[in-house]
Amino acid sequence: MTAERFTVTYRVTPDDARSIEAHAKDICIEETVEIPEDAVPASHWEQGIVGRIESITERGGQPTDYDVRISYRVDITNNEIPNLLNVVFGNISIRRGIKVIDIAFTDEQVKAFGGPRFGTDGLRKALNVFGRPLATTAIKPLGLSARELATLCGGYARGGLDIIKDDHGLIDQHFHPFEERVARIQEAVREANAKTGRITHYYPMVAGRFDAIEKQMAFAQAQGCFGVLVAPMLVGPDTGYYLARKYDLAVMTHPTFTGTHFHDPRHGMTPAILLGTLFRLFGADISVFPNYGGRFTFTEAECHDLADALRGPIKGMKAAFPSPAGGMTIEKVGAMLDAYGEETALLIGGALLRYSPDPAISARAFVDALEQAVKAKKG
Amino acid sequence: MTAERFTVTYRVTPDDARSIEAHAKDICIEETVEIPEDAVPASHWEQGIVGRIESITERGGQPTDYDVRISYRVDITNNEIPNLLNVVFGNISIRRGIKVIDIAFTDEQVKAFGGPRFGTDGLRKALNVFGRPLATTAIKPLGLSARELATLCGGYARGGLDIIKDDHGLIDQHFHPFEERVARIQEAVREANAKTGRITHYYPMVAGRFDAIEKQMAFAQAQGCFGVLVAPMLVGPDTGYYLARKYDLAVMTHPTFTGTHFHDPRHGMTPAILLGTLFRLFGADISVFPNYGGRFTFTEAECHDLADALRGPIKGMKAAFPSPAGGMTIEKVGAMLDAYGEETALLIGGALLRYSPDPAISARAFVDALEQAVKAKKG
Repeated sequence: MTAERFTVTYRVTPDDARSIEAHAKDICIEETVEIPEDAVPASHWEQGIVGRIESITERGGQPTDYDVRISYRVDITNNEIPNLLNVVFGNISIRRGIKVIDIAFTDEQVKAFGGPRFGTDGLRKALNVFGRPLATTAIKPLGLSARELATLCGGYARGGLDIIKDDHGLIDQHFHPFEERVARIQEAVREANAKTGRITHYYPMVAGRFDAIEKQMAFAQAQGCFGVLVAPMLVGPDTGYYLARKYDLAVMTHPTFTGTHFHDPRHGMTPAILLGTLFRLFGADISVFPNYGGRFTFTEAECHDLADALRGPIKGMKAAFPSPAGGMTIEKVGAMLDAYGEETALLIGGALLRYSPDPAISARAFVDALEQAVKAKKG
Repeated sequence: MTAERFTVTYRVTPDDARSIEAHAKDICIEETVEIPEDAVPASHWEQGIVGRIESITERGGQPTDYDVRISYRVDITNNEIPNLLNVVFGNISIRRGIKVIDIAFTDEQVKAFGGPRFGTDGLRKALNVFGRPLATTAIKPLGLSARELATLCGGYARGGLDIIKDDHGLIDQHFHPFEERVARIQEAVREANAKTGRITHYYPMVAGRFDAIEKQMAFAQAQGCFGVLVAPMLVGPDTGYYLARKYDLAVMTHPTFTGTHFHDPRHGMTPAILLGTLFRLFGADISVFPNYGGRFTFTEAECHDLADALRGPIKGMKAAFPSPAGGMTIEKVGAMLDAYGEETALLIGGALLRYSPDPAISARAFVDALEQAVKAKKG
């Protein structure tokens, strides 16, 4: 019997004079048996428990780098998020010049991790919004009262936004304790929805400690939230996805505390792999990321690769919305539609606060700009 | 009333022509209110909710960098691990050229997070080992049966090692399911301890999913384990510490999946901050890290800074053991004692497998080398 394998492509820039084969073998061993090569039992090689080099392609350039495809037995990852991350990029994260640029999962893995539960189609149906990108924002800043945040959110909802999330810094501080905040904001959103006849969803940031987070998820569900904002690197790569699934909540992921993966183009994971391929596999319905041209560092190409990773066809997995954010403005809506297309959840945060003192006016201007841009594009 | 503040020192290498003051202000805003400066309510500045620049020191060099001290209100972090990490290095992780090099916590924070529960003194008392570094190893490789791992561990225990941990790749795979593995290994260790009259502790790797990990901690405790191996970035920065505290287990931390913080000396967190200051504050009794001169990338200076961060005197906080590892051998024991001193948990992994087919002989050689080195040093 041959154990099923999945394949990771690493772009390797050797940091010493050893051969690329030696570097590739280092990865195979480090990410699995983690012992000197001559101490690996023969049976481990035969059974393929050690990672296996599938191909090495020289790319040239200065310094020369290589695309190294390594396959691993699926069963050594146990189809669990912590275990999978440990095999794909665990100890080798502490080496140099190794970038994860592609992962090809098996059907079994796709089925086991499950991907988005709602996906782009599911969210559109729930919101009853078709034919244009979703219009989303974040309520902020940290330090307002729960009442002030609810007023702000109610205004945005009356103005016609589709999804309003907490700023990711709103956790459970005394300014705006989680339960009071969620209850007040949901009330404001319900009132606005009743008035407009439209549907706006509020996604609270859920980032409590291990002993608090499940209660927070249950509370969000009980208050009628459709989804939650999850920062996988703050609460644990598995925690938010698992709980959102358990409590039937859509997942919008936030990239805070992930940035060291992207800083060096020769090391870490690409935005497409971490915020795209992996977050989608684990269950993100929407993945927020810093758009190029804002105040962050992603390039245009990185952003498009990420959007492709979230929406590209994968057998048995729903598509997720890319949600470019970070320094976006109403003026850029047309350009963003051109760049990302319709299946996008555009997120304008701070710029809405500046647009008008009345959040309903800001929200309306955002949605209007979006509808006009779509109309102009469709001719 | 003035809200209590704590201070983070960032080493900033500006990536554009703007002034260092502008870069510093970016951090103050991004990590707290995250809105354009002109949209920040006046009250937020007055109440110090926005981060505050305490000092900027130019360091010179090419490119020029600066040490920027920024203080934050303690209450915006809510004394919770996810929230604290988000304030210290959340969104700015996705910018460029920002390295966290120091954090000064308040007494209140030290008390709230608690630090090591046993610390170096507590572990020594429990092991009854004084006057020399601890001798520790990892059982591996992944893919052996639970029975084979137990035989290996029993041998190491008979040879006199102090702490034996799972290799961090041993999670809950079918080769060695968590409960069977822990039960068999604990049995082997108990038998060895009865034979030698010494005390060896086994620390299993606990890295299950959200729905499994608490049960695993409880099982480890019920089987009589003194501590556990925790990889904070795999299971969530808060999860392992919280559960180990709840189940009265010592914590040995593993650095897998943390390496992108260290890859670029101008971005991320230093090893001393992440694996030292923060892991100790959160509750690590022992912090494993890749020693210089092995197969990883830490420099000698980084390793010493990390050891200092784990052991340095901090009011109200116990000291933790640095545990240098990664390519260590019995031959290097003397040099490591010279480098790190007595309050260290030396970890030799794969090299023990190569030393002798009999793990008891390998372990005995390791402990003998250690005792001789201590004797030679003390004259």
